[in-house]
Amino acid sequence: MTFDLPAGMAVLERTPVALRALLAGLPDGWTTATEGPGTWSPYDVVGHLIHGERTDWITRAEIILAQGENRRFQPFDRFAQFTESEGKSLEELLEEFAELRAGNLALVWSWQLSDAQLALEGEHPSLGSVTLRNLLATWVAHDLNHLGQIARVMAKQYGDEVGPWREYLPIIHR
Amino acid sequence: MTFDLPAGMAVLERTPVALRALLAGLPDGWTTATEGPGTWSPYDVVGHLIHGERTDWITRAEIILAQGENRRFQPFDRFAQFTESEGKSLEELLEEFAELRAGNLALVWSWQLSDAQLALEGEHPSLGSVTLRNLLATWVAHDLNHLGQIARVMAKQYGDEVGPWREYLPIIHR
Repeated sequence: MTFDLPAGMAVLERTPVALRALLAGLPDGWTTATEGPGTWSPYDVVGHLIHGERTDWITRAEIILAQGENRRFQPFDRFAQFTESEGKSLEELLEEFAELRAGNLALVWSWQLSDAQLALEGEHPSLGSVTLRNLLATWVAHDLNHLGQIARVMAKQYGDEVGPWREYLPIIHR
Repeated sequence: MTFDLPAGMAVLERTPVALRALLAGLPDGWTTATEGPGTWSPYDVVGHLIHGERTDWITRAEIILAQGENRRFQPFDRFAQFTESEGKSLEELLEEFAELRAGNLALVWSWQLSDAQLALEGEHPSLGSVTLRNLLATWVAHDLNHLGQIARVMAKQYGDEVGPWREYLPIIHR
């Protein structure tokens, strides 16, 4: 699929609603479960998505669009959610994510991006040159990556309980 | 996590809502995308989930609960959706899935299953002896497996568009 802004935004606007539908009100056993030490729970993932809305996608898009002298992005803090989510309920995080995402999408729409702007480049601290188009497509794929992660983390909690069906459920071995 | 009926049902009741939130109204490019020949689109997956509601989970649970002489399940048709979904819109399928799931969960609640009943066995045509508990846990994990699949199928559509970020997105290589 070729990246197309309205189609990409259609996924981005659905993620908060889908996550709320999947996670809100679930027993904590599901939402705080992980894949083992050092891995993330659904709760942690939502905090990570929030941090991305606050510091990553829009900030980097603005660096690219400004085309200033220094187009190098700040590294993204992949562990910020462990302090930033402290004391917040999952429902609060889901609400916060939905609000931030809606605001960010409204901002992106307001830019009325041209193809020429989508081709502008910035510099990722590890990956080198990336275009605005790469960044926006990654925003979408990153949502889906974490949605898939949440499904996997949850499925693994029943790794024993499914008994012999385990072999038919690739998500449990991954 | 130990299988617990209310916690398992909490996931089962959320799947149709989460799938509708994720997929309804999305451009067809997303919902009919696959991972290549012989693989399934999000549209195909919803049809597969419907077929499971109609012919698999409840039917098998009833065979186990009846404890008749023949407790062997019919093999599940993994390709039924290719004919059964014909002519239906994704929105129709999402609605059908939600209705069937709600009815099936109401039926399971009405059984007021005891631990002794959860330990009863049936015979899977390939896997051998399985308990009702295994079956119900698998129903949950199977939903999550297919939710993860949908996220993966969609993410892969941007495999090229994410550019250098590809290496940070495990869902795209899988």
